[in-house]
Amino acid sequence: MAFDRLIEKICELQNPTVAGLDPKLDYIPGSICEKAYAEHGKTLEGAAAAVLEFNKGIIDALCDIVPAVKPQCAYYELYGWQGMKTLHDTIQYAKSKGLFVIVDGKRNDIGSTMQAYAAAYLGKTGVAGEKSAAFGADALTVNGYPGSDGVLPLLDVCREEDKGIFILDKTSNRSSDELQDQSFEGGETLYEAMGRFCEEWGKSLPGKYGYSGVGAVVGATWPEQLTQLRVMLPHTFFLVPGYGAQGGDADSAAPAFDSNGNGAIVNASRSILCAWKKEDAPQEKYAECARKEAERMRDEIIKRVGKIRLEKV
Amino acid sequence: MAFDRLIEKICELQNPTVAGLDPKLDYIPGSICEKAYAEHGKTLEGAAAAVLEFNKGIIDALCDIVPAVKPQCAYYELYGWQGMKTLHDTIQYAKSKGLFVIVDGKRNDIGSTMQAYAAAYLGKTGVAGEKSAAFGADALTVNGYPGSDGVLPLLDVCREEDKGIFILDKTSNRSSDELQDQSFEGGETLYEAMGRFCEEWGKSLPGKYGYSGVGAVVGATWPEQLTQLRVMLPHTFFLVPGYGAQGGDADSAAPAFDSNGNGAIVNASRSILCAWKKEDAPQEKYAECARKEAERMRDEIIKRVGKIRLEKV
Repeated sequence: MAFDRLIEKICELQNPTVAGLDPKLDYIPGSICEKAYAEHGKTLEGAAAAVLEFNKGIIDALCDIVPAVKPQCAYYELYGWQGMKTLHDTIQYAKSKGLFVIVDGKRNDIGSTMQAYAAAYLGKTGVAGEKSAAFGADALTVNGYPGSDGVLPLLDVCREEDKGIFILDKTSNRSSDELQDQSFEGGETLYEAMGRFCEEWGKSLPGKYGYSGVGAVVGATWPEQLTQLRVMLPHTFFLVPGYGAQGGDADSAAPAFDSNGNGAIVNASRSILCAWKKEDAPQEKYAECARKEAERMRDEIIKRVGKIRLEKV
Repeated sequence: MAFDRLIEKICELQNPTVAGLDPKLDYIPGSICEKAYAEHGKTLEGAAAAVLEFNKGIIDALCDIVPAVKPQCAYYELYGWQGMKTLHDTIQYAKSKGLFVIVDGKRNDIGSTMQAYAAAYLGKTGVAGEKSAAFGADALTVNGYPGSDGVLPLLDVCREEDKGIFILDKTSNRSSDELQDQSFEGGETLYEAMGRFCEEWGKSLPGKYGYSGVGAVVGATWPEQLTQLRVMLPHTFFLVPGYGAQGGDADSAAPAFDSNGNGAIVNASRSILCAWKKEDAPQEKYAECARKEAERMRDEIIKRVGKIRLEKV
């Protein structure tokens, strides 16, 4: 099961964090951009080339200390199909360096369409009997608003291809309370109901450390809800965004973890990618600065959570 | 305002339907596939080439009788970046034929990320001062689960670039009742709450026919909810999926319309794209069959809804 692989990697590196690859052009050293523009013009192709070069530098700097990366689709779609080629190449490069790759696409639709998304990001695309992986990630984020029809087709692909999904539950943004925190008749909130579905959907993808192949996205910006959900969803692995630039820290992310230091992976994007800018470092040190920030974040979280131990169930 | 343009086109053609471009390889005549595979191999590139050729034939056959097309992202992402190039080329081809293009991506995220999606699909991408449209659609479908933060950045781009969005409200699939039909304390269901937000978000994008630039997706498979929402959301234009292969028909879609025959556009995908298969027609007639089915659908809906009249508010 895919999250077993992720959990083992987290434990091996003693690092429950994932580096978000949300590479805005502003984050990329001018020298990388200039080189790409000289070759491809100030075009979508040029931008996509700059992003790929930047990502490779970040991946090289992080691959022996972080278990996973999370490219955010929007920052690749922003550069059109050229950007999507960079997404593909980034995923393949990260995998070649041993990283677990979570594509943050928050995809959702009716069942027949979700089969296509599942094949695109986690499975294989058949073309006249030949099969190839369009993007080939290890996990995909999913929005569960359409209900079970939109999730079940993913589970089949997860089982066959050893992949996982993360369902949006309590998102890190400020306005997530508008709908997600509202209580249904009977008292259950929308995010509690969504969490309950995650546990249910996960039953068909059990993992050896107690966590299923259906995880949930719960923001580090909502420590109370994290605390509550960790108890309520004992088989659901958490992807925790909102650390760093969005205001979350080790204290607010800590409730995502169980007593073994397992059960969650915390994402940071801007704070890692832009570390060189924050420190006013020379641009050629961008990857080195990213590594230092990733180490600092790792140490901060491990100090708070304690040593991560594997325990089979 | 973008939906004013769409409404005028619907009225001019007396056709409140949109052709969904969800081109599975199974739907495409073998001759088109063989030609593409001969040139590009049985690869993602070959499949993407076949899809583009097929789409162009459909667009040529429909562009003088239907006002809009709706490519579904999943069926392009399925073929990787090569498929995304076909998505781009399909959008541009459809626009060159005067069609209104709704990209069905159901995108959703926190605000900063939604800025990137808004630029990618509706606005322009800036690269070192140069601007270009990555996909350049007229409208995008959006999932509102994250709340206002995830929608407001789209509204700015809609205003500046004359574009629109459709928020998922009551989706056409069977399991949409699992969450969307649940009642909050106070009695409002989740889809009613989402609809109320659509009205609220739409206030900043008023249209001259009474409908704002923030539409809602409501399935033809749920006529009761359609009836209720038409009354409850007087400024929200509806995109109505679920007609045809999913089981909806003119009777079940009719409640989406107001007394002027305005207020909605009904989507059909499989029934149009696969008409040639259903009729056992020779494959070279696929576009002709699609046109006949689109005419039949138009006539069926207009017969039920009556002549569409524009009325300024």
